[in-house]
Amino acid sequence: MSLLENIEDFRQLKELNSNDLSVLCQDIRTLIADVIFRNGGHLASSLGTVELTVALLRNFNPLNDKIVFDVGHQTYPYKILTGRRDLFHTIRQFGGLSGFPKRNESPCDHFDVGHSSTSLSAALGYAKARDILKQDHHVVGVIGDGAIINGMAFEALNHLKDADTKVIYILNDNTMSISPRVGGAATHFAYLSTNPYYQKLKKAIKGCCKSLPKGESIESFLGNAKDQIKSLVKPDNIFNSLDIDYWGPFDGHSIEEMDLIFHLAKSFDRSVVIHLITQKGRGVEAAENEPSKYHGIGVAFSKEAPKSLSWSQAFANKVEKIAEKDPRVVALTPAMKEGSALNSFAARYPKRFFDVGIAEEHMMTLSAGMAAGGLRPVAFIYSTFLQRAMDQLSHDVCIQSLPVLIAVDRAGMIGEDGETHQGLSDITWCRSIPNLVFQAPRDLVDLEIMIDEAMKRSGATAIRYPRGSVIQALCRDNLKKTGGIKAEILYEPQGETLFIGIGKTVHFLNEARNEAIEKGFAEPGLMDLRTIAPLDWDTIDPLIMKGYRILIAEDGYLTGGIGEAIAARATEIGASCSIELMGVSDMFLPHGTVNDQWNLCGMTIDKAVAFCGEKTERKTG
Amino acid sequence: MSLLENIEDFRQLKELNSNDLSVLCQDIRTLIADVIFRNGGHLASSLGTVELTVALLRNFNPLNDKIVFDVGHQTYPYKILTGRRDLFHTIRQFGGLSGFPKRNESPCDHFDVGHSSTSLSAALGYAKARDILKQDHHVVGVIGDGAIINGMAFEALNHLKDADTKVIYILNDNTMSISPRVGGAATHFAYLSTNPYYQKLKKAIKGCCKSLPKGESIESFLGNAKDQIKSLVKPDNIFNSLDIDYWGPFDGHSIEEMDLIFHLAKSFDRSVVIHLITQKGRGVEAAENEPSKYHGIGVAFSKEAPKSLSWSQAFANKVEKIAEKDPRVVALTPAMKEGSALNSFAARYPKRFFDVGIAEEHMMTLSAGMAAGGLRPVAFIYSTFLQRAMDQLSHDVCIQSLPVLIAVDRAGMIGEDGETHQGLSDITWCRSIPNLVFQAPRDLVDLEIMIDEAMKRSGATAIRYPRGSVIQALCRDNLKKTGGIKAEILYEPQGETLFIGIGKTVHFLNEARNEAIEKGFAEPGLMDLRTIAPLDWDTIDPLIMKGYRILIAEDGYLTGGIGEAIAARATEIGASCSIELMGVSDMFLPHGTVNDQWNLCGMTIDKAVAFCGEKTERKTG
Repeated sequence: MSLLENIEDFRQLKELNSNDLSVLCQDIRTLIADVIFRNGGHLASSLGTVELTVALLRNFNPLNDKIVFDVGHQTYPYKILTGRRDLFHTIRQFGGLSGFPKRNESPCDHFDVGHSSTSLSAALGYAKARDILKQDHHVVGVIGDGAIINGMAFEALNHLKDADTKVIYILNDNTMSISPRVGGAATHFAYLSTNPYYQKLKKAIKGCCKSLPKGESIESFLGNAKDQIKSLVKPDNIFNSLDIDYWGPFDGHSIEEMDLIFHLAKSFDRSVVIHLITQKGRGVEAAENEPSKYHGIGVAFSKEAPKSLSWSQAFANKVEKIAEKDPRVVALTPAMKEGSALNSFAARYPKRFFDVGIAEEHMMTLSAGMAAGGLRPVAFIYSTFLQRAMDQLSHDVCIQSLPVLIAVDRAGMIGEDGETHQGLSDITWCRSIPNLVFQAPRDLVDLEIMIDEAMKRSGATAIRYPRGSVIQALCRDNLKKTGGIKAEILYEPQGETLFIGIGKTVHFLNEARNEAIEKGFAEPGLMDLRTIAPLDWDTIDPLIMKGYRILIAEDGYLTGGIGEAIAARATEIGASCSIELMGVSDMFLPHGTVNDQWNLCGMTIDKAVAFCGEKTERKTG
Repeated sequence: MSLLENIEDFRQLKELNSNDLSVLCQDIRTLIADVIFRNGGHLASSLGTVELTVALLRNFNPLNDKIVFDVGHQTYPYKILTGRRDLFHTIRQFGGLSGFPKRNESPCDHFDVGHSSTSLSAALGYAKARDILKQDHHVVGVIGDGAIINGMAFEALNHLKDADTKVIYILNDNTMSISPRVGGAATHFAYLSTNPYYQKLKKAIKGCCKSLPKGESIESFLGNAKDQIKSLVKPDNIFNSLDIDYWGPFDGHSIEEMDLIFHLAKSFDRSVVIHLITQKGRGVEAAENEPSKYHGIGVAFSKEAPKSLSWSQAFANKVEKIAEKDPRVVALTPAMKEGSALNSFAARYPKRFFDVGIAEEHMMTLSAGMAAGGLRPVAFIYSTFLQRAMDQLSHDVCIQSLPVLIAVDRAGMIGEDGETHQGLSDITWCRSIPNLVFQAPRDLVDLEIMIDEAMKRSGATAIRYPRGSVIQALCRDNLKKTGGIKAEILYEPQGETLFIGIGKTVHFLNEARNEAIEKGFAEPGLMDLRTIAPLDWDTIDPLIMKGYRILIAEDGYLTGGIGEAIAARATEIGASCSIELMGVSDMFLPHGTVNDQWNLCGMTIDKAVAFCGEKTERKTG
């Protein structure tokens, strides 16, 4: 039986000696690596936070104290040590543990996360709640060095002084977010890590703590430390500029060092930022060497790497090709160079590639400025993170109708990352922004047409595409290519049933159509809308006026979506069709495979086929 | 003829001597004050930037150089001096000049603005476009001290180092944003303003510039200045922490001083932040003394101050009242204390009031953290600025279903601030977020019911309300109050016409109904939806099944809006009604009065009355 198997309660951690702790940390790493190489998940970040988690749980009691993590993909050790060890093998699986902190999963999880840079604000909220409700506990906000450069985190740091409370912020600095970190602040952190002043400060604080006699007031010792500290010459420090105490850097793999500093921070009468240096991928050689590669691991990692071209790669390839001939083309990403398959573009056009870090708002307005200045920017962003830049898309790109192309990656249901990362809102949110052409291709042929046209358009375009592999051509027999915002009728209905889809749902409906034909139903029609905004009423109207029974499927929320738009149009123009909608109903979709999620939403081939066989109960025309 | 009347081209400014300049500045102030006291507009900010604008136009040529302003309500002097003096009296009026920079208004306007903190990103975009397109001009980004604390501005500052370009940032520090500024950074700026180091730096730079012999290279003098500068001991500086050169502070009312420093900045080989101290309201005594009050001046200012209770005040009053009994209630605002009528709440409950500065994202997640910690936060935010916090609303508040009440102020068409400030997206965007109850009251009675219920709800609520005055009760004869998410049928249809509205459009439709009755039409029915999400299908379905001719009016975008939802429902359930929608079509609405805007959208009483007289061309049932 391993030591980890004996830990039934995080409070046991306090009793372990230094040797035990090091054995325990190795046990945790082994468990994490085993499960993640099998299930997929975020490996490197969690390997880096093993000792930090142990130290947190030795010094804080999360049943009382509030520990707020950021992003949350570094919390696997925390899950394992707070009652979820035996369920850990279910992580990211449908019905299993979430890959992120979840309040309804454990009383030790204090804030649901997924998107970056929320922990400082949320922890500050907890601290003010404690003050106002006259409670007595500690509040700890943990944030990475990649996440702290996001504007929202800065807003929280700026507010801290006025907020007049006590919160302990831990800067977990592994010198990377997902890719190596970006910007002036990164250099600043590196400088802090090597500055002799901070080495002396560290020594002073540690010296003071070590000599603390049991039972005596820590305050006097803090006073003593302060005096020692004041005698040192303080260099530039961004936190001090905001009137926030900064302590660090400390070794985030030394539990002993963290024990001391957490102990001190608890007694300190002001808020403090504690800077810890950790190593992403720590303890697993492959992950230590290539932390970006091992940041997130797909489910198939240990089985078979997918050989087929991803939508992301296909999009990036096309943009790279256009960039060969057009020197105005630039590509931007908010810290998702790998995810959006931009490695090749970045290597080939380093001066025309911009990884702005986790800074979606800035990226969008930067793109707008570039377009105003005569460039043709392509802003690559996951659908879920586009939620962070909606105002900038509307206010800075679209009001001025600037020629920015938004590559909306990971649109629709995205699988194991679950609730926080679904790309379900972009259809509704973006289609209501004026001056934005918004499209979704069903195959590579159309993706390339759409990108080509977007790059020539005088205004803005967004193109959404899903996770997974692109196919070269779908339903292209005897068909001319369609351009502009036109919808395409792929198959005329032979009976009374018409399927309408867009992007990924065209595949789904085409499969259902084939099965329906096999089952002997009259051949359903199939339309690919291609364009979400503006909808191509010239093509749609005649079809809905014909009184078909129509099934519309979209990979996004039904509320305010395409199906609603077409069904509304039918009422407005007095069309006699009947319409049924498939899509995601009004809920946050939990983690699982993409298939699990489609099933959960009732988006199954069986259901679509059954639709062909249903009697028309009414003809409203 | 005043001196200002003689200035036909900004290039004339270079020729003016010190006396002339001071006369000119007075002329500009007089013109601005005259027009703004008549038209309404942003007075105090523009009075503070007169000399800064003159100095910019003496040292940069906006037909070639790119000057990007932030927010833009400080650009009246710029408009006056760049060809728009004679149109200035039309500012903020329908068809007249915009109250903000507009690229289609002048070749000297380089970026449309309105929302805060975009200029650093946009200017950086222009600078990179210049580099990549191998152009040769200066790029200047102007930002206020209130705006620079927004996260987006920080993201741009952090990116500047890696962006590897040359841009001149001007920090226009009037020690206020709209209200006095907030946070650690504010204190830091004040500290920079008084630090002896910077006084010495200033002297060194000025001395160096003054001694510059004509025709000789400025670089050698810069070298000289650098040596002088290096010998001084540099204190903490947030810009230096980000590896950005900082020069300042200088007097933003001394054209001579700015001439020198802009000259130097143009020749400097790196990006630089120039810190200027200006005085909001400068030169107009009333505005100098009460800059918050004179920040934005309503059209009616010089006519008659509205005595009636505003929606904002009514909302704030009710929350204050609840806060009397419930110590968990806290109020938050992103720098809109006056606008959201929170002065009284703030004075009465200073420990439970949080002005976070222009930091919408942080405010929303801070609220989520507070709610998770047991408080009942009410986050006051204008509809247009809620666009900045959509991800936080969905990801941090609603996924966890936390009891935050979002007071969505200035919802719908907002008048003179125009395109950038319309509150038209909230209906579509918010109604598609799961776990969010979203309502709009028609009168004070319902506002109070909705707030009371929201404060008891276990999850999140948003309540939208318009600019202008609330009325105590509308259509309340013989009616019980309705609660929950129920819609209310105010009048059953006597003929075949049914009006459906919500919030402000209930007033509009009620008026149309009265006029229709007066004109002898059969009494139209009137329904107040009350709740946008979830829509009360129990009440709506039976009505749409009855085959009425229905007119739905909403104060927001039609795309993805309530009308579309109901029209779609009619198709889905096979209802035999016909439906016509009134609302804002797919466009950015220009400035003008709210009335102008309703007219522009075809939302007129006449049109609604005419609907009652139209023949039903078809009965689809």
